[in-house]
Amino acid sequence: MIDKLVGKIKKLNAPIVVGLDPNLAFVPEHIQKKAFDEYGETLEGAAEAIWQFNKAIVDAVYDLIPAVKPQIAMYEQFGLPGLEAFHRTVEYCRQKDLVIIGDIKRGDIGSTSEAYARGHLGPVKVGSRSLYGFNEDFVTLNPYMGSDSINPFINTAKKEKKGAFILVKTSNPSSGEFQDRLIDGRPLFEYVAEKVNEWGSDYVGECGYSYVGAVVGATYPEQARITRKLMPKAYILVPGYGAQGATAKDLLPNFDENGLGAIVNSSRGIIAAYKQEKYAKFGAEHFADASRAAVIDMQKDIASVL
Amino acid sequence: MIDKLVGKIKKLNAPIVVGLDPNLAFVPEHIQKKAFDEYGETLEGAAEAIWQFNKAIVDAVYDLIPAVKPQIAMYEQFGLPGLEAFHRTVEYCRQKDLVIIGDIKRGDIGSTSEAYARGHLGPVKVGSRSLYGFNEDFVTLNPYMGSDSINPFINTAKKEKKGAFILVKTSNPSSGEFQDRLIDGRPLFEYVAEKVNEWGSDYVGECGYSYVGAVVGATYPEQARITRKLMPKAYILVPGYGAQGATAKDLLPNFDENGLGAIVNSSRGIIAAYKQEKYAKFGAEHFADASRAAVIDMQKDIASVL
Repeated sequence: MIDKLVGKIKKLNAPIVVGLDPNLAFVPEHIQKKAFDEYGETLEGAAEAIWQFNKAIVDAVYDLIPAVKPQIAMYEQFGLPGLEAFHRTVEYCRQKDLVIIGDIKRGDIGSTSEAYARGHLGPVKVGSRSLYGFNEDFVTLNPYMGSDSINPFINTAKKEKKGAFILVKTSNPSSGEFQDRLIDGRPLFEYVAEKVNEWGSDYVGECGYSYVGAVVGATYPEQARITRKLMPKAYILVPGYGAQGATAKDLLPNFDENGLGAIVNSSRGIIAAYKQEKYAKFGAEHFADASRAAVIDMQKDIASVL
Repeated sequence: MIDKLVGKIKKLNAPIVVGLDPNLAFVPEHIQKKAFDEYGETLEGAAEAIWQFNKAIVDAVYDLIPAVKPQIAMYEQFGLPGLEAFHRTVEYCRQKDLVIIGDIKRGDIGSTSEAYARGHLGPVKVGSRSLYGFNEDFVTLNPYMGSDSINPFINTAKKEKKGAFILVKTSNPSSGEFQDRLIDGRPLFEYVAEKVNEWGSDYVGECGYSYVGAVVGATYPEQARITRKLMPKAYILVPGYGAQGATAKDLLPNFDENGLGAIVNSSRGIIAAYKQEKYAKFGAEHFADASRAAVIDMQKDIASVL
């Protein structure tokens, strides 16, 4: 799957992943109204609204991008109907041949991580059959509990030819509270980066990159310079561009000398583009066209610095 | 909710939480067969089997215990039908007046943690209505991303009179890889413990304990001695007793001088008790009676050391 991801990034010249994180506040009024008319102001109504929103955006941008990253929290907030919309979104993106990064940030004791791995990278045994629950291509993982919380995902990924991105240095303001604490003069996130390198070292695709990648926030370019060196084979998933404040230049340290090695996420900046002054001319009716324009601008912006 | 939890612990003299973590391997053959006969060897069939299994165990033990802790991974592994069984289990336990600790170990950037908080502690706004997705009483959280990943849960918990248990020192073998790394001579988990104390300090119930608790594994009693002092007001959720190897004596450092301040989880040790030699006499048909016997033995075992 890392080979598919890198192949698509090269072909499209677009190291871009669109974060499908549909808060209701992003969904235009007319889509909400239609969904509520049909299902009422219920969790089912909300789920229908975000599904229709997602579908229109995917239809508008799928030929420009290699991958999508649905953030499962945005679906989980609407309970079971929300997770049904997550499942439907994943399946729809697969039909469009997009690489799907499930942003789930899971991680637990070994037997529990095994269950998460079955649910998200699959399959799970039921009687004599092997079935898939959510079936993403990659997942994001939290490393706080160490190797035995990560290995079950890597083992499942190996069998399924899938992959994972492990949190190293996150994009949020308080990420330094623990991640930057100094251990023998070096911050914790560097040790995590070394572990990511170790976890992924014997699991490298034909493209030269590992199936075990990392998450490094675009909001911390100085730190990215270090992590890039510590994990030479890790593909880096970079959140924080756009809405969280990072610019194209801030992304550079995550890329290698070939302009590869990183894929940049934008969520709000793409899916709620129609709410920005820059794309206001599209209007709420044509929100998906605004998203397409924003993807094209993002592609150009990143290409201009690489 | 911390007052309800502590009140129930005192009344039942049982600082015990039963982990409802139903792997199919724990579910007796006759329950699996009935579910598969009805739904086939499908995710729906698996979900029906674990729901029937849970229901029988809850019916058998609910009067003895203050709380249950369903581990959402065990449901997520069966995709949407599995999560429906999770939801049904939570609702059923609420009817039985049990305190429900959703073992979800979530944590993300602020806006994403807000969504998780809405989904699990609720409510979420849909049009003019406020609706609940999963609606547990407490959740477990991962602190790797720092304060702004935790605060949205605490804010929601405040409004809903609910709570959270934050990972400090986990029970798994590799928990030390990052949690034990020394920062100015003290392990990382101690700094996390100090933060937990800070996060919960202005949010204390009438019982004197905070709504913001911690997870400290029973498998690390020496470390528990330190964390107990660093978080004097935190209730401590203690996994690792029984199947993971810790004994009643190992639990002691998590309790305070009043024999309160901690609640001990057992999952496999209770729900799959009928598979142990000690309870084999019950047979698979009477697996729930075996669970009841195991709860009674666990209660006595812990009472004997307190």
